[in-house]
Amino acid sequence: MARAVVLLSGGLDSYTAAAVARQEGLELYALTVNYGQRHARELSAARAVAVALGVVRQVELALDLTQFGGSALTSRLDVPKDRLPESGEIPVTYVPARNTIFLSLALAWAEVLDASEIVIGVNALDYSGYPDCRPEFVRAFETLAALATRAGVHGRSLRVRTPLIDLSKAEIIRLGVSLGLDYALTHSCYDPGPDGRPCARCDSCLLRAKGFAEAGLPDPLLI
Amino acid sequence: MARAVVLLSGGLDSYTAAAVARQEGLELYALTVNYGQRHARELSAARAVAVALGVVRQVELALDLTQFGGSALTSRLDVPKDRLPESGEIPVTYVPARNTIFLSLALAWAEVLDASEIVIGVNALDYSGYPDCRPEFVRAFETLAALATRAGVHGRSLRVRTPLIDLSKAEIIRLGVSLGLDYALTHSCYDPGPDGRPCARCDSCLLRAKGFAEAGLPDPLLI
Repeated sequence: MARAVVLLSGGLDSYTAAAVARQEGLELYALTVNYGQRHARELSAARAVAVALGVVRQVELALDLTQFGGSALTSRLDVPKDRLPESGEIPVTYVPARNTIFLSLALAWAEVLDASEIVIGVNALDYSGYPDCRPEFVRAFETLAALATRAGVHGRSLRVRTPLIDLSKAEIIRLGVSLGLDYALTHSCYDPGPDGRPCARCDSCLLRAKGFAEAGLPDPLLI
Repeated sequence: MARAVVLLSGGLDSYTAAAVARQEGLELYALTVNYGQRHARELSAARAVAVALGVVRQVELALDLTQFGGSALTSRLDVPKDRLPESGEIPVTYVPARNTIFLSLALAWAEVLDASEIVIGVNALDYSGYPDCRPEFVRAFETLAALATRAGVHGRSLRVRTPLIDLSKAEIIRLGVSLGLDYALTHSCYDPGPDGRPCARCDSCLLRAKGFAEAGLPDPLLI
């Protein structure tokens, strides 16, 4: 059975991307990174999602990116509220090089497991303007991976699978619902209250709300 | 003053590479990763080297790669003794995707600092057969970096500088001595004794000894 390392954040995108890979018969190994994010609530969501997906193993790696800062998610910068980023704008919730770091960590584990794929839930449509969610970034990482590893030297290639890359948030939600996913397990908010409830006002909450509205479905987190 | 993020391990290569960048007028920010390496002794060497180089700041990041294993440096596999790897062989001391991970972390910090360079002490001659020490790997990482970051989107490129890439270990040592470096501060051994003394028998000790011998210089660590 072919193995895939899935980057699992606890949000709905990575849950859906992992479920697509499972549907296609891959054995899942979930990697979750505790990078000092303001919304550490997503880590417990990632654990619940990993169980629901029936992953073989979940690794939760600690990596303190607050030592670098530079993002509203990893420093004292405020999370913007009540507005979605303009087209072409890179919002302050962008975490420098986050997906490069996450893919590199997944690559290390994939090499040890002899996995054939890394699965990441990036999407280029409703992607919040992050440069490291673009298809050209993902392809460049695949090229790098082939040069970086023992497997690459031996001619085995590793695919970075992005099943959501061309989907809108509404299409992702419809896909997940068709796969029987329970989005009540997920967490998206960048700035949750002390009780873990979503703020309903940050980028991520607004994108999620727009997605459920366009899909014509209620968000089970808010019921 | 232009800034550079230097990957500083505590070994002699990264010390020399950083000194070359300093010589050229760059302001140094040192990044050291505590990845669960068997030879954690190198972390205190990295601190001493950072002070000797006069870096503006050193960040020591903890990242537990023993959760993945797959290397003699991060698992219970034995470190080979009394032999250098054959040409074309990738030794068991290879840590999967280590340089990809380290460069990704340096990229994150470089983006926050608006640094123009990342400096890494890889060399392709006496490189122990690691795939992620080859020039083509480094160039692929530069391509990725341009796509991964806010700076790249805004047209600012980040150079990955590899001042040692074409040098033998003996040439690196001669270069460092000409720059006044004190190699007594460094640590190379993969499998030091409880007192921190080098084993004199692992890959890394053998390469170091060969380098000093070919340079016609005594190793100050062994005096």
